[in-house]
Amino acid sequence: MEEAKHNEAEEAQGIEAREAKQIEAGETSRSSRKLITFEPKLVINKGISVLGFVLRLFAVFGTIGSALAMGTTHESVVSLSQLVLLKVKYSDLPTLMFFVVANAISGGYLVLSLPVSIFHIFSTQAKTSRIILLVVDTVMLALVSSGASAATATVYLAHEGNTTANWPPICQQFDGFCERISGSLIGSFCAVILLMLIVINSAISLSRH
Amino acid sequence: MEEAKHNEAEEAQGIEAREAKQIEAGETSRSSRKLITFEPKLVINKGISVLGFVLRLFAVFGTIGSALAMGTTHESVVSLSQLVLLKVKYSDLPTLMFFVVANAISGGYLVLSLPVSIFHIFSTQAKTSRIILLVVDTVMLALVSSGASAATATVYLAHEGNTTANWPPICQQFDGFCERISGSLIGSFCAVILLMLIVINSAISLSRH
Repeated sequence: MEEAKHNEAEEAQGIEAREAKQIEAGETSRSSRKLITFEPKLVINKGISVLGFVLRLFAVFGTIGSALAMGTTHESVVSLSQLVLLKVKYSDLPTLMFFVVANAISGGYLVLSLPVSIFHIFSTQAKTSRIILLVVDTVMLALVSSGASAATATVYLAHEGNTTANWPPICQQFDGFCERISGSLIGSFCAVILLMLIVINSAISLSRH
Repeated sequence: MEEAKHNEAEEAQGIEAREAKQIEAGETSRSSRKLITFEPKLVINKGISVLGFVLRLFAVFGTIGSALAMGTTHESVVSLSQLVLLKVKYSDLPTLMFFVVANAISGGYLVLSLPVSIFHIFSTQAKTSRIILLVVDTVMLALVSSGASAATATVYLAHEGNTTANWPPICQQFDGFCERISGSLIGSFCAVILLMLIVINSAISLSRH
């Protein structure tokens, strides 16, 4: 009789031990399957940072592409009237040289700023580095706008000339040269718009701190 | 004897009443002289907004002053060689017209933005209006930079000419004209720097929210 009681007690303990284990296992499994719920604000902040990075990447292509296109522009034509070989290259016009330098500087800066921009995607609370980036972005915006419009002023004169100042157009002689310098302006003006969006993106990101 | 005691008791009550009044008066005077202690953060935020307003005010003078200076530039000279009256005014060169339009637009915008800037001094927590102002400031920065450098490209050609493009300098004939168009560029470049500082000021103000 006594033995039967002893077995029952052992069995009860065994069941309890098993239940305790099950409960324990239940808790660990629930904690490991912790629902990763993202705060909506965090998702938006990360989205803004990713957008900033993408805009920066396109601006790199715009600036460096236009600097390369302008910097490799030259043409030689034989002038039938004077039977001489006329040559023109971008560095003959100082504003086009300024255009190449301005786009090269800002393109170089934008490449260097890409890692910082990636850092901002992962640490949405970084503030000082964002302000520094915004300051330099603002300066680069002014630089690229200046380079693009100074070159546009010269390209316009090359196409149209100016009678008051007695400046003849040169694109009739150097049509290839003119086509290429006009084309390279487009990349730079796209970069101006992208830089504006980058400055605004950074400011909005800062305001969400 | 009894009368003397009675007088003493009355006297004691009188003193107590006077003291109670004094204590009461002391408290009300202390509360009315409540020390107005400003939070340092609030003082800095207000300082940043005041600085933004002052920068904006100077930028108004820079843009509108240079637009007026350029827009009223003209000169007539008698050409001794050809015995004709040569006239030149700013609108004969399209980039100078673009300069006047760009500075007039941004000057007009800056005047309209002054009241908003004053509003920001008193309500340091306003965020949306700050972002809108920053967006338009950024666009105006690109516009004024473009206007100033397109005009600079033309003024440079007017002074130096270009042999490759066969564009003679015109400043020997129109020295007064050249002096004035060169001077009006300075106001505009100051406005470019001020607009950069305004954008950075707005961004820092936003980041302190």
